Amino acid sequence: MTLVFISKVYDPAEWSQALRAHMPDLDIRIWPEVGDPRDVECVLVWKAPPGDLQRYPNLRLIQTFGAGADQLLEDPTVPPAVPIARIVDPRQTAGMVEYVLYAVLRHHRRFDEYERFRARGEYTRLPHVDAGERRVGVMGLGALGCAAARQLAQLGFDVAGWGRSLRQIEGVTCLHGAGQLEAFLARTEILVCLLPLTPETEGILDRRSFAALPRGACVVNVGRGRHVVEADLIAALDSGQLDGATLDVSIEEPLPPGHPFWRHPRVCMTPHIATLTTPRGSAAQIVENYRRARAGLPLLNRVDRRAGY
Amino acid sequence: MTLVFISKVYDPAEWSQALRAHMPDLDIRIWPEVGDPRDVECVLVWKAPPGDLQRYPNLRLIQTFGAGADQLLEDPTVPPAVPIARIVDPRQTAGMVEYVLYAVLRHHRRFDEYERFRARGEYTRLPHVDAGERRVGVMGLGALGCAAARQLAQLGFDVAGWGRSLRQIEGVTCLHGAGQLEAFLARTEILVCLLPLTPETEGILDRRSFAALPRGACVVNVGRGRHVVEADLIAALDSGQLDGATLDVSIEEPLPPGHPFWRHPRVCMTPHIATLTTPRGSAAQIVENYRRARAGLPLLNRVDRRAGY
Repeated sequence: MTLVFISKVYDPAEWSQALRAHMPDLDIRIWPEVGDPRDVECVLVWKAPPGDLQRYPNLRLIQTFGAGADQLLEDPTVPPAVPIARIVDPRQTAGMVEYVLYAVLRHHRRFDEYERFRARGEYTRLPHVDAGERRVGVMGLGALGCAAARQLAQLGFDVAGWGRSLRQIEGVTCLHGAGQLEAFLARTEILVCLLPLTPETEGILDRRSFAALPRGACVVNVGRGRHVVEADLIAALDSGQLDGATLDVSIEEPLPPGHPFWRHPRVCMTPHIATLTTPRGSAAQIVENYRRARAGLPLLNRVDRRAGY
Repeated sequence: MTLVFISKVYDPAEWSQALRAHMPDLDIRIWPEVGDPRDVECVLVWKAPPGDLQRYPNLRLIQTFGAGADQLLEDPTVPPAVPIARIVDPRQTAGMVEYVLYAVLRHHRRFDEYERFRARGEYTRLPHVDAGERRVGVMGLGALGCAAARQLAQLGFDVAGWGRSLRQIEGVTCLHGAGQLEAFLARTEILVCLLPLTPETEGILDRRSFAALPRGACVVNVGRGRHVVEADLIAALDSGQLDGATLDVSIEEPLPPGHPFWRHPRVCMTPHIATLTTPRGSAAQIVENYRRARAGLPLLNRVDRRAGY
């Protein structure tokens, strides 16, 4: 009954207490103090140190804190036979929906432009656009993308969604597959990326995609940094093809000093905080998965290694 | 069948077309070209030029573009026997709800702080607070306040409302009257003002009210500028009692050059754009009111002069 906790972002004391509340005899070890690796049956991990997950011969479950498992799937040292599970929980989803709403409203109502007016001492009104006339597009229709698209539609936006396979979401026009990507982009004034990172989606937001958007569109990336070709994004902002970008992620995190995202006037950048997995929301799910892994039962939110999410 | 259009903000051509679509024989005159004042039965007005409304002996309806009628009620030259109607329509409400959501999410998720971090090149994460732990308070529970409170509650915020009289709103703790104001303020971390402007509410957001909020609270004013004692607001921001303010209105509009709201680092200021009355949303309502006024029928959204809204 031993779990290794591996994260620089999440607080081990807070999580240990929450996990033990659901499994009092759980032995929690905080990486790098793992003791005898043979004891370890479960790792709870945000970013795995290279090669570390090979050390545990009796590992039954790799549980990530995040909604995406791309970091684990790309790491060839992660043992291929051990199941990986990710977190999907309503609080994590709610945090993401908040961030997306904020970013979409900011672009929709042009609060960035009003901030520039204010800095220049200009008291100027811009034309008003009803939500029903604003075409928002959500790329990626997993749990987070669906929730965001549904909430945007509920606020009255004209929402389309795009994903790998066809979905049905009430009030949302759903497109799918490579064949419909261009049509999706052509009708999207505010683009929200909530795709999983896979070999197919890496770099999907590039010069070609930006050119397919209507001129003056905005981009919100709450997926992964590597969904965006960063130099192409900067070029599209500088040329006026894009009006603005809200980015919670970047290829390198923390964002390195001197990176153009720090200073670009049309970029709003946050340090990967769109949502967070909280002990209150997820400790029960993690403990339940550990129990299932020990009992050989199907896992909650198990990652499909072939699909890549 | 003559209506005088008085506004510097709204576009007379766009409105004339929309009004005539509902009443083809309507004679619309654009102030100051009003012709014979005896023809005029209805004025559609944003801000009335002083004394102007006394000029029309056959006036049957004063229809304002806005949700508030305070400017008309304060003007002693507005004929007391002519009924005043204001606009309440779903599009106007939706615009206000968008603005309030944006402002509340900005304070809740501390996007202003992240922007300051970014300006300093700091990649720092702040503690995450679930919406359910965030206490938002909406002052004023008319059509706009109710809609905003309901939407905030639907997103999971812990919402209280306060108004002159007791209301019931699903998912919202409703308080009322002067006796419950302090309790309402004491539990409010993000305060949204959507009150009508009346002698009772003028200056309600003053030093005393700010002191009753928990330290570090934020204020969103989408009511009228005169709800806020501006010097008290600046002092509360400077002392740290308030963490930030989002203001769509100011006592003087346009905001005069040199006003501290232009430059204060904790103020987000917009030029009275939280919502707009659109011909598509409201032309039918205005024409219907004109028909009712001519027929002596009860008006839509008639202002109660004694209550002040």
